[in-house]
Amino acid sequence: MAHYDLLVIGTGPAGQKAAVQAAKLGRKVGIIERQMVVGGVCINTGTIPSKSLREAVLYLSGFRQRNLYGAGYRLKATITIEDLAFRANHVIAHEIAIVKNQLARNRVDMIQGTASFVDPHRLRVQQGADAVEHTADFIVIAVGTEPARPADVPFDDVSIIDTDGLLGLKRIPDSIVIVGGGVIGSEYGSILAAMGIQVTLIDKRPRLLEFVDREIITALQEQMKEMGVTLYHDEEVLAIRKEDETRIDVCLKHAKPIQATTLMYAVGRTGATKGLKLEAIGLKPDQRGRLFVNAHFQTAIPHIYAAGDVIGFPALASTSMQQGRHAACHAFGLPDRTDTDLLPYGIYAIPEISMVGKNEEDLRRSHVPYGVGMARYREIARGQLIGDETGMLKLLFHRQSRELLGVHAIGEGATELIHIGQAVMAYHGRIDYFIDTVFNYPTLAECYKVAALDGINRLPRPWPSQSP
Amino acid sequence: MAHYDLLVIGTGPAGQKAAVQAAKLGRKVGIIERQMVVGGVCINTGTIPSKSLREAVLYLSGFRQRNLYGAGYRLKATITIEDLAFRANHVIAHEIAIVKNQLARNRVDMIQGTASFVDPHRLRVQQGADAVEHTADFIVIAVGTEPARPADVPFDDVSIIDTDGLLGLKRIPDSIVIVGGGVIGSEYGSILAAMGIQVTLIDKRPRLLEFVDREIITALQEQMKEMGVTLYHDEEVLAIRKEDETRIDVCLKHAKPIQATTLMYAVGRTGATKGLKLEAIGLKPDQRGRLFVNAHFQTAIPHIYAAGDVIGFPALASTSMQQGRHAACHAFGLPDRTDTDLLPYGIYAIPEISMVGKNEEDLRRSHVPYGVGMARYREIARGQLIGDETGMLKLLFHRQSRELLGVHAIGEGATELIHIGQAVMAYHGRIDYFIDTVFNYPTLAECYKVAALDGINRLPRPWPSQSP
Repeated sequence: MAHYDLLVIGTGPAGQKAAVQAAKLGRKVGIIERQMVVGGVCINTGTIPSKSLREAVLYLSGFRQRNLYGAGYRLKATITIEDLAFRANHVIAHEIAIVKNQLARNRVDMIQGTASFVDPHRLRVQQGADAVEHTADFIVIAVGTEPARPADVPFDDVSIIDTDGLLGLKRIPDSIVIVGGGVIGSEYGSILAAMGIQVTLIDKRPRLLEFVDREIITALQEQMKEMGVTLYHDEEVLAIRKEDETRIDVCLKHAKPIQATTLMYAVGRTGATKGLKLEAIGLKPDQRGRLFVNAHFQTAIPHIYAAGDVIGFPALASTSMQQGRHAACHAFGLPDRTDTDLLPYGIYAIPEISMVGKNEEDLRRSHVPYGVGMARYREIARGQLIGDETGMLKLLFHRQSRELLGVHAIGEGATELIHIGQAVMAYHGRIDYFIDTVFNYPTLAECYKVAALDGINRLPRPWPSQSP
Repeated sequence: MAHYDLLVIGTGPAGQKAAVQAAKLGRKVGIIERQMVVGGVCINTGTIPSKSLREAVLYLSGFRQRNLYGAGYRLKATITIEDLAFRANHVIAHEIAIVKNQLARNRVDMIQGTASFVDPHRLRVQQGADAVEHTADFIVIAVGTEPARPADVPFDDVSIIDTDGLLGLKRIPDSIVIVGGGVIGSEYGSILAAMGIQVTLIDKRPRLLEFVDREIITALQEQMKEMGVTLYHDEEVLAIRKEDETRIDVCLKHAKPIQATTLMYAVGRTGATKGLKLEAIGLKPDQRGRLFVNAHFQTAIPHIYAAGDVIGFPALASTSMQQGRHAACHAFGLPDRTDTDLLPYGIYAIPEISMVGKNEEDLRRSHVPYGVGMARYREIARGQLIGDETGMLKLLFHRQSRELLGVHAIGEGATELIHIGQAVMAYHGRIDYFIDTVFNYPTLAECYKVAALDGINRLPRPWPSQSP
């Protein structure tokens, strides 16, 4: 039994950053984790394992080299689960150590066990047969999500898995049906296809990732098809049946039934709020277990905050960190400053996608007169050097002021590249910046110059400036 | 015989951009090239081949993977010249096509032959037995450089080569002595070491690349040593003797003689001005064939400009492009705007190095009170994922205003990463920008946040802001 200035539930990105922020402000902080390891879904089953899988596949499949050494090029003819898990485990162990170290260095109390509310300032932490209660002035709920497992999907964690189940498989499947074309479905779909697995991706919506620029998604879908992915849009799964250990039958609403050796159910995740006894304090999550918060990440009870995946979209590690930090800043009276328009999005599919700022639909909707500038990786030396023939960078800018309004990218390094445009946007810079700037040669960053020149060349003459 | 608004001599980066800029302004432009292919040293023997070699070596040697799969990991036990040349030729052919296309699209006349001055407005172009003369209002000399070949070095282009000779070798050497630790020597030295060649690098100065941040160079030198490079600093070569086809003896001023199968002479390059008949117009290059220019890239004859490697430091493709563009802008009365403080430098050694803005010595010399913030790749998830344990990013900022003053980086992607800091510096941003910004996770760009936090944590308390 102890009293804290702040208690945090969950050690994923949001929880970590909330705890560390409060500790840096000199507050007494405890952080509660029900798993044996810190890091949450991000480190243990989600972000890090999937990105690590992605790196291993890109390398071991020789995928990046096929434009240079021919489409038939493969580094390892047979990739094993061990190959993939080796790399993931190496990184996971390291990330866990970093988080533990960071929490310890900032004197955050690590409390092992499952938290539940006794009253709005009191949490009970159960570990095995033992339980202890702690109180706090402020509480941050950062419990994250878990895969949705609807009753009508016959999960067996061997041939019918959820999105956490992939690295637990004993062997790499010959073919896989992925139900759900969100971020996770698109990432795994493309990664598994790069490994040579026959992938079928089924989504209810007319295209993947509807929050992403249409041209970028068209490019993604084209490349996924080239990699052998079969895409079903506007389609629904009516039934999933396991025929035997190596055959799953999937009945669809519109198309003929399909078969695969494995099925991954990737439709949504639910907030991991079930064990929290929120009813004891009168907080009610939505039907998918998620909590509503205001702009300061406060729930309906002002001293109880929620941050990270448990509050829903965009559910990215990067934004979750910022939410956790802001919750702690707000609790202890500090300003929380991030311009939310400038949150970047990174999708680690093959190819990688990233964006920041407005998209064309935003701009049309708000009647902003905008111009478009495009650069393709194959036009620049670095694109040639790395063999990325399909990458592109797209700039959106105000037609009169030429202020940069949005950056959309697909291709190797897109998640890094976007941050150059993000900085220019933060200072309300114009695309002229890219024309006047010297970029290292050969870099992908040169795409900004090519795209800016393209954008200006498309404007009606006379041009306000005459740079080439 | 034709009259041009602008005649450009040389089709490397400086010449290309000067010609295209002038053409975009509606001027009549001709560009003269003595080689059978366009692109100059950059595409044909310098930048592109060495970067292409670098990519191939990084991949084929499995170098990037050794932290993940063990130090003994090698992808191909024996790399052949064919492996390396394949990739280089692919990229070279493509880049040549792009340049030719760009010149043609902008209606720049391609003139094949060797140019020499007849008078300050008249050039003679010799091709075989034929010669033709053209006149121009303005002339840009962008002839680049060629390797210095001093008489006392017994070049045979087989076992004693200059820096253009590497990809012409018939077999990969077992051991190589590189004389000269400048950009080219450091790049090739580290690349060849990554291939498993025993490299000895000899330099006159106390450390490599004296214009680069000291801490970054210390890291580079340590890594080169770990890769097996033997470094001689403050050392001079007294004599080079070829004993037989597989043994070169090198006598040093201070240390004992050394042997290798091959020697690359990489001390300086000379401006390729010899054939220009500059004496006909009274222009005098320096003893290394280079031309002096003013801030507008004008030579002593105001309508004759020089740009690119022929004017000396920094002799990078990126800056040469900007110089060529500025020369053309100035000639035709347009402003030339680049803030030269913000020229980035990219060195494609293994590991990659990049920097922009001030270094510590600059700041000490001008008595600017500055702080330092450091991030190491191994501290961030992306560094772990790619297995780069040694990369780092260093921020220099004003201690009071916290304005960002310089960025120095070593490690994978450094040449891309630097452009984020460059944008912030262009807008006179503070390091607080990085703390307030959400970066995609996991990216190397997160180093900026870690380094900014580190920098602020090192400042004496109370901190102006309390971000963690």
